[in-house]
Amino acid sequence: MRVLGVDPGLTRCGIGVVDGAPGRALTMVHVDVLRTPPGDDLGLRLLAIFDGIEAAVERFAPDAVVVERVFAQQNLRTVTGTAQASGLALVAASRRGIRVALHTPSEVKAAITGSGTADKAQVTTMVTRLLKLPARPTPADAADALALAICHIWRGTALNRLDAAAVRAAAGVRR
Amino acid sequence: MRVLGVDPGLTRCGIGVVDGAPGRALTMVHVDVLRTPPGDDLGLRLLAIFDGIEAAVERFAPDAVVVERVFAQQNLRTVTGTAQASGLALVAASRRGIRVALHTPSEVKAAITGSGTADKAQVTTMVTRLLKLPARPTPADAADALALAICHIWRGTALNRLDAAAVRAAAGVRR
Repeated sequence: MRVLGVDPGLTRCGIGVVDGAPGRALTMVHVDVLRTPPGDDLGLRLLAIFDGIEAAVERFAPDAVVVERVFAQQNLRTVTGTAQASGLALVAASRRGIRVALHTPSEVKAAITGSGTADKAQVTTMVTRLLKLPARPTPADAADALALAICHIWRGTALNRLDAAAVRAAAGVRR
Repeated sequence: MRVLGVDPGLTRCGIGVVDGAPGRALTMVHVDVLRTPPGDDLGLRLLAIFDGIEAAVERFAPDAVVVERVFAQQNLRTVTGTAQASGLALVAASRRGIRVALHTPSEVKAAITGSGTADKAQVTTMVTRLLKLPARPTPADAADALALAICHIWRGTALNRLDAAAVRAAAGVRR
């Protein structure tokens, strides 16, 4: 499956595309960071982020789009822009009929490093290793977007298997 | 000038369109509240809000779109959805080359009632009176969207006059 991860942000919005399946090798397809200048008109900044995400969704045609879940408690100074960028990613995917998922930062860290409290350097190290990249992806937003995609390939599929098992179990009960 | 006001929200998103100019009568052109069920998929809810705002912008072709400014401190439980809806309104306007403006709730209250700390009932009373409506607009999100549009017609035009004066002054200095 192909997953497009979005680390939402207004100044820097990370986009990472990964192909893979649980228990098989992962391949990085694309990584990019969309940037908009803090001094620019807010509407034009959001439009640039929206256009950039739409272009990536068009170009890479992912099976799923996964976006970091935003918590209002996180960083009061930037949370509005982060939430706005995440909403644009959800709309860009949904209007093409692509499944969207949200994962929390600690879910991503736990999936990639085994610890929900791992630091950014540790996440970047594991992303570099798992995707067999020649160099560490920078900035952190790029690595975070790839980490989201990897997390979804592993967790999403596990959850799908659980869903399928639940469906089968429910069907068995009825028969 | 015609202004489309958006009171952003995920469960209820108010849209109000007003024609007018400072010192002249105001006319309500349209009022609506977009609603999405809290239990639905987040991507589909945001897409419904985006489509609804785009349809209103297409239909009423406003000179400006004005959106309530979101503060992370406001209401932690709903701020993420409110910020996401506001971002969608800004993109819907910006991609059509329409000017967007943001006003804070206290700027709107001060413009409409004379007090930045007026309550919702007082704002609704003044909106009803200023637009000569036969009944109070409900829910509050509808009245708030109309109040935003009125505020922008009054304040925006005053600010535009100041901008124009500043431009003339700057030009005068250079000549």
